[in-house]
Formats: sequence, structure tokens, C-alpha cells
Amino acid sequence: MTERETHNPDDTLDTEGIPWLKPELVTRVVEALESGDHSLVRSLVSPLGSADIADLLEPLRADQREVLVELLRPDFDPEILAELDETVREQVVEQMGAEEVAAAITELDSDDAVEIIEDLEEKVQQEVLEEIPEEDRAILEDSLSYPEESAGRIMQRELVAVPTHWTVGEIIDLLRSDEDLPDDFYDLFIVDSRHHPVGSVPLSRVLRSKREETVEEIMDPSQKAVSALMDQEEVAFLFRRHDLISAPVVNTDNRLVGVITIDDVVDVIDEEAGEDILRLGGVAEEDFYGAVVNTTRRRFTWLLVNLLTAFLASLVIFQFEDTIARFVALAVLMPIVASMGGNAGTQTLTVAVRALAMKELTRTNALRAVGKELLVNGANGVFFAVITGLAAAWWFDDPRMGAIIAAAMIINLVIAGFAGTAIPLGLTRLGVDPAIASGTFVTTVTDVVGFLAFLGLAALFLV
Amino acid sequence: MTERETHNPDDTLDTEGIPWLKPELVTRVVEALESGDHSLVRSLVSPLGSADIADLLEPLRADQREVLVELLRPDFDPEILAELDETVREQVVEQMGAEEVAAAITELDSDDAVEIIEDLEEKVQQEVLEEIPEEDRAILEDSLSYPEESAGRIMQRELVAVPTHWTVGEIIDLLRSDEDLPDDFYDLFIVDSRHHPVGSVPLSRVLRSKREETVEEIMDPSQKAVSALMDQEEVAFLFRRHDLISAPVVNTDNRLVGVITIDDVVDVIDEEAGEDILRLGGVAEEDFYGAVVNTTRRRFTWLLVNLLTAFLASLVIFQFEDTIARFVALAVLMPIVASMGGNAGTQTLTVAVRALAMKELTRTNALRAVGKELLVNGANGVFFAVITGLAAAWWFDDPRMGAIIAAAMIINLVIAGFAGTAIPLGLTRLGVDPAIASGTFVTTVTDVVGFLAFLGLAALFLV
Repeated sequence: MTERETHNPDDTLDTEGIPWLKPELVTRVVEALESGDHSLVRSLVSPLGSADIADLLEPLRADQREVLVELLRPDFDPEILAELDETVREQVVEQMGAEEVAAAITELDSDDAVEIIEDLEEKVQQEVLEEIPEEDRAILEDSLSYPEESAGRIMQRELVAVPTHWTVGEIIDLLRSDEDLPDDFYDLFIVDSRHHPVGSVPLSRVLRSKREETVEEIMDPSQKAVSALMDQEEVAFLFRRHDLISAPVVNTDNRLVGVITIDDVVDVIDEEAGEDILRLGGVAEEDFYGAVVNTTRRRFTWLLVNLLTAFLASLVIFQFEDTIARFVALAVLMPIVASMGGNAGTQTLTVAVRALAMKELTRTNALRAVGKELLVNGANGVFFAVITGLAAAWWFDDPRMGAIIAAAMIINLVIAGFAGTAIPLGLTRLGVDPAIASGTFVTTVTDVVGFLAFLGLAALFLV
Repeated sequence: MTERETHNPDDTLDTEGIPWLKPELVTRVVEALESGDHSLVRSLVSPLGSADIADLLEPLRADQREVLVELLRPDFDPEILAELDETVREQVVEQMGAEEVAAAITELDSDDAVEIIEDLEEKVQQEVLEEIPEEDRAILEDSLSYPEESAGRIMQRELVAVPTHWTVGEIIDLLRSDEDLPDDFYDLFIVDSRHHPVGSVPLSRVLRSKREETVEEIMDPSQKAVSALMDQEEVAFLFRRHDLISAPVVNTDNRLVGVITIDDVVDVIDEEAGEDILRLGGVAEEDFYGAVVNTTRRRFTWLLVNLLTAFLASLVIFQFEDTIARFVALAVLMPIVASMGGNAGTQTLTVAVRALAMKELTRTNALRAVGKELLVNGANGVFFAVITGLAAAWWFDDPRMGAIIAAAMIINLVIAGFAGTAIPLGLTRLGVDPAIASGTFVTTVTDVVGFLAFLGLAALFLV
């Protein structure tokens, strides 16, 4: 097998003719904005697509962004609004005003329109909705009536549905003559007389079939209809599992009301993964472009919870004040036990939370997962007991100190393994997102157990 | 706007006719396996698709899994292999033997085949490759010659490419007669005489165009060709940004060699998000179904790094032994300062790592991001200085103790804000994944600074 790793993958980005937003371009636009050279800004921006323009707008300073939006406004591409991050979008919407925003939204597919509207503040939302023509507004309001993060919110209304008795020829003729079709579509949905979906046909199969064949003959009857009420995370799981490109959405009467396409699902996957990452890091929903005040307030809550648990750990230490006063080495060494327990617990918990999100950790193997973590953490507990015990005994020239920290280490790491799986499993069963709350619980347990085991053993055997 | 939240989204999963793997089904299969009722197992499993069977195999005990694979073997669906998790797949491959695995792989699309083969151990890989017919093997070996995690590894060779002068009618006729087409495809790729891609046409546009139109007239010339050497994370970014469903892949001579479809990209997105989550949690690449020994060894490395940094923090405390011996309250309170700094630093770092991964944090706004974090952490530092200072002063009836912990808190939180952004930014510039290394650096900084500031101020002003 020959190796072809001679080319640096980074080189290829520039040579492929991809309309990619390069950092150099951002820098040049910023410089042009600073110097007030608006015709240069226009010529730099005009070759860019809507996604790139959104990427360009986001990192700009608010005043620079305002100037650029003003330059783009005469022929503003509505897609840009759909691509923008929430905080930045709010500012752009405010600048453009309800009327212009409503006009832009009306041009978009209904899923993009809903995504923009649902994030607006109540008052702005009403103003924009009022400017939208009756018929379009009714559709948007119906979508907004579904719960947040449900299939009904991310579905698009524009789709191609045909009855079972149609032939491939009739479909092609319809598609060639009908002007009012979605921009892109990947499957045809087959409906019965009550508009219930009964199957779907990928376009590649339509193209490969003879004109006289009926859709009933070529359709895929395994019906992967999604309820409009289904949670978007479940929708993403369904798409992943069955490698879907699009799926029909039905209302509570099982009537076909929309379609979810894979690009919406990719956004959901990014959103859910980002949520899990931030929550595990002790950050509730946060917007990278959010204002300092909001960010400070959101993080404050989590830090306050942490402060309370830190005081709890301090209370444990407080019980052993006399012992520490006699053996100050205990104060020097005690953070090691707590820190190792916290890290081992976080490792276990991270694996458990990800496995729960990917539906790998289920009722079937929950007990086995806890058992495995006890073994893994127990084994590492023994290794680190030996290392830390020897180091502590040598440092303070006291074998008892080594034995005590070794025992505390094993106890704390085993407890970390147990807490790291049992807590997220328990929270999931209670219907709480394990990503958001497990971290505090687990480190509280390992701090308290760490200090208690180490100082408690010291009080028993050292004094 | 009416609310329609009367239905519980969970209810709908069971009523939609979705071939969904329900936990009850897993339980029933396990029971049937335990009781040795093989015909019941077969009847339970036979309606399931390949993805569901893979999901069913994964959580089983190794011996149960072996029995189920044996039952499935007479007409084993090759797709199951592609869907399985790496560790479980290795065991199934071992059970089936090289010849049967090779036969299964030959039936798959080339991207799935490569995914299975690349994960096999060197020796097994060679055995399987030798059993694969010459022509297929050459294609697989070519794909394997591209770097791991590159576009060349995830691309599929089967695609539909047509020359520019063809008409829509000619294409439809070709598709209707050609047996050797990919199972599913979403775009036609247009190539010039040297087989360089010059454009693409989504199938929906082919269906909407008249028979006499040429592809040149209807194709999308904005060429989003991907180099086979491009990193898969970049590929995912490109798909997301341009809402692509499929993209042509070119070799170093710019010849069209394959296609990447969105379902492969979804796997990449999951993989990369999972990697970031695990790395931030201090877990190097880990497989949920991995053996205890491997898991223990992988986690050991990270815990060892943490032990060294914990000893570093202990060394700092050691410098203040005399002060602590005189004021044991310092030992009680010092973990609070370190813990709050660690949490604030982790918050900042998590946001920065995610923003870097989503390309929201760039050179353009790096300085502003650091500034924002200094403000956010400074503000929270002041709030928590007041809370903790008052609590400490009251607890130990000593206003100086309150003032000292308050000052240390502000110092440590500001440093946490700086380290939490500067460290991931610096690592990224050095080409190191910030998710894997930032955590240790940041908590080492906040531990050391926390203990140093608190105990140092105490030594200066308390004694």
C-alpha cells in the first residue's frame, strides 16, 4: 500500500476554488470598514454566499457590523438572516425594522422563517408577524404552535406529495410544469386519499424507473413518518440510524403537514452536541456573541452552586481542625486526594453522559457499566495509591502518612467510579438532563469523600 | 396562537409505526437468548433493519452476542457490520472469519467497506483484503492510501458523472438502462474531457428540466469540489456552511475520484463532537464498549498528569506550612478559592473550545474574546468576593480572614478568565487540539494561583 501523505491538507483549501471565508478576507473587510472605503467593502463582499456573509458579520464589532448591514441592505439576501447567530441576528433585525424583516422572511422556506421568528423577542415577533401576508402568516403561526425543539418547529411546509396511483411519467410532467415547488427536495412522499403518508420514493429511483410505472410499485412502504410533536433530538437519532435525507412529518391526525430535511438535522446535531459540551463545562445555554451582562449572570448561578458545595467540603475539613493543627502535612496533601477523585469522577461521568446521549448506555447494560467503572477506577485507585503513598511517605518521612493517603485514594476513586455512573443514570431516570447537573453532584461527592476519608483515617491512626 | 402541547412527545414513538428499537424488545431478546429459545429470537429480530440489529448487538454480553451472530449468520446483512461500534465489530469479524467478512464487505458501498477495513488490526486487515476480488481490492487499497480522517477515507467511489454536452433526456435514458449505479445519489456531477468536475446538478433539477436541455445549461457551476486530502472536520464544516447533500472529491490531479454524502458527514460531526466532549472530560479516545484493561490504561495517563499538577499545588501549600500551623482556618478555607477558580476557568475554557470548533472564535475577535472573559470573570469575582468574604469573616470571627479570601477570589477568577481563553487560543495556534490539553493547564493555573494568592496574602497580612 503506497502512502500519499506528501500533500499538506491545509494547502488544498486555497487551490480548490471553494468559496471559503478566509481569515485574510475578514481582516481586509475590517480594514476597509475602518478606513471608510465602502466601494472596496462592496467589492470584497459581493462574491460571497449568504453563509459566508453571516460568518463575516458575526465576529465584527457592533458598529462595524451596522455599517456593513447598511451597505448590504439595498439587495439583502434573506438567507443571511437564517444563517446568523441569535444575538447578532437580533441586532440586525432591530436595525432593519419589522417591515423589511417581514419581507425577507416571506421569501424564505417556512423552516428558516420559523427559526428566525421563534428567536425574536415577543414584541418584535408580533410586529414582524403583522407585516407578513395573511396566508404565509397562518402557516408560520401553525408551526409556532408546536412545542420548542419539536419536529413541528424544524419542518418545512414546502414538499412534493403525490397519490399512490400516479405514474412516473405523470410525476415528471408535473414537476416540469409546476412552478410552485420547493427549491430542493430529495424524496417524493406518497399519500392516500386522506393525505396520510403511505410511502416515499427517492428521486434517484424516480429517474431510474420507466414512465409507465406507478409510484405504488416503486415506493418504499416502510413508513418513517415523524410526529410533529417528536423532540428534535429523537428526530436526529432517527435520521442517523436510518441514514435518512428527508422524512415526512405528520400532525396528530396522521396527515402529512411537512418535511424535515437532513440539513435541519445537522443543525440539531450541532446544537445538541454544543449544549452537552457547555453543560458539562458548567455553562448553561450560552451564546458566544452574547453580551457581558447576560453571560456574567448565567455563569453566576452555576458558580453559586459550586460555592455552596465548596463550603460543604470546608465544613468537613473544619471537623478535623485539631488534627490538621498537629500535622500540617495533612493540609498540604489533602487537595491531592480530592483532585484525583474529582478527575476520575469527571472521566467516568463524561463517558456516561456521552453514552446516554448516543443511546449506547441503556437499561440493558446499566448495571454492567457501573461494574466496569468500579473495576477501572478501582484498578487506577490501586496504581495511584502506590505512587502517591510512596511519594507522601518519602516527602514527610512518615510511612503512616503514605499508608493513609493510599487508602484514601482507593476509597475516593472507587466512589468516583460509582458516583460517575450512578448519578447520570439516576438523573436520566428522573427526566433531568444528566449533562447539566451531574458535574456538581459528582465533584461534591469526591470532595467530601476525599477529605473525609483522608482526614478521618489520619485522625484515627496518626494521632 | 393556540398551544397544542396536549400530547406527550414520548407517546408518539410507539404509535408511528417507526421501526424503532425499543428497550422492551432488547429485554425480550435477552430473555429469549438466556432461555435458549432460538426460534423466538429469530422471529423477534427478523423485522429489524441493519441499524437496529447493530444497536441490539452492542449492549449484549459477549457470549449472548456470539449466539445471536451465529443465528444471523446464514443470511447476514453486510450493513450490520458497517453500523457496529469498533470494539463490537472486531469481535464479530473474528467470529465470522476473513472469508465471510470479505464477502460481506464486497457487497457494501466503498465508503462503508473502507470504514470497516481501516479499523481492523493490521493482520486481520491483510487476511480480509486477500479474500476480496482483485478489482474491488484495488479500489479499497487506493482509499486506504489517503490519510486517516481525510476526505479520501470517507468518500464513496460509486457516483454518476456525465459530460457537459449531455441532455437531460440522454441522462434519464442512461439512468433507466444502467444497472451499475449507486444505491442512492442526490446530485449528478458534470465532468470535462479530462474528468475534472466542472459543476453539479441536483436530481430535483434534472426532474424539472425538459428532455432537450443540456446539463451545461442547468448545472450549478459554483464548484464545491473537495480534495481527497482535506481533513474530515473541514469537510463537515463545508457541508454545514453550504447546506450540501453531496460533494465531489478530487485527487491531486483534480480528477473526480469519489463523492462524499451527507450521511457520512453526519457520522463525522458525531465523531468530532464526541471527541471534544470526551477530551474536555479528561478522557482520550475511548470506546464505550472497550475492555476494562484498555479503558484503565487510557485513563491512567490523564490521571497521572493530574497527579503531577496536584503535587505542584501541594508544593505551593507546603511553602506556607508555618502560617497554616498558626491559622488552621486557612486550611479549611483554601480549597474554596481553588475550586471557584477551577470552575470559572473551566466555564471560560469550555466556551472557548466550542467556539474554536465552530469557527466562531477566530483571529479577528480573539482579543475581544479575552477582554470579555476578563470582564465576566472580574464581575463574578467581585460578587463572590463579597459573598465568600462575609461568610469567612463571620465563620472565623475575623474580618481580616474575610478580606484576604475576598482579594484572593478576585485575583483567581480574573486569572481564570485569562487562562481559560489564552490557553486554548495559544494551543490552537501551536496546532494542538485545545480540547485535549487546555483543561489540565487551566486548572493547574487556578490551583496554583488560588493557593498562592490566598496563603500568600495571609502570610503577609495575618501574621
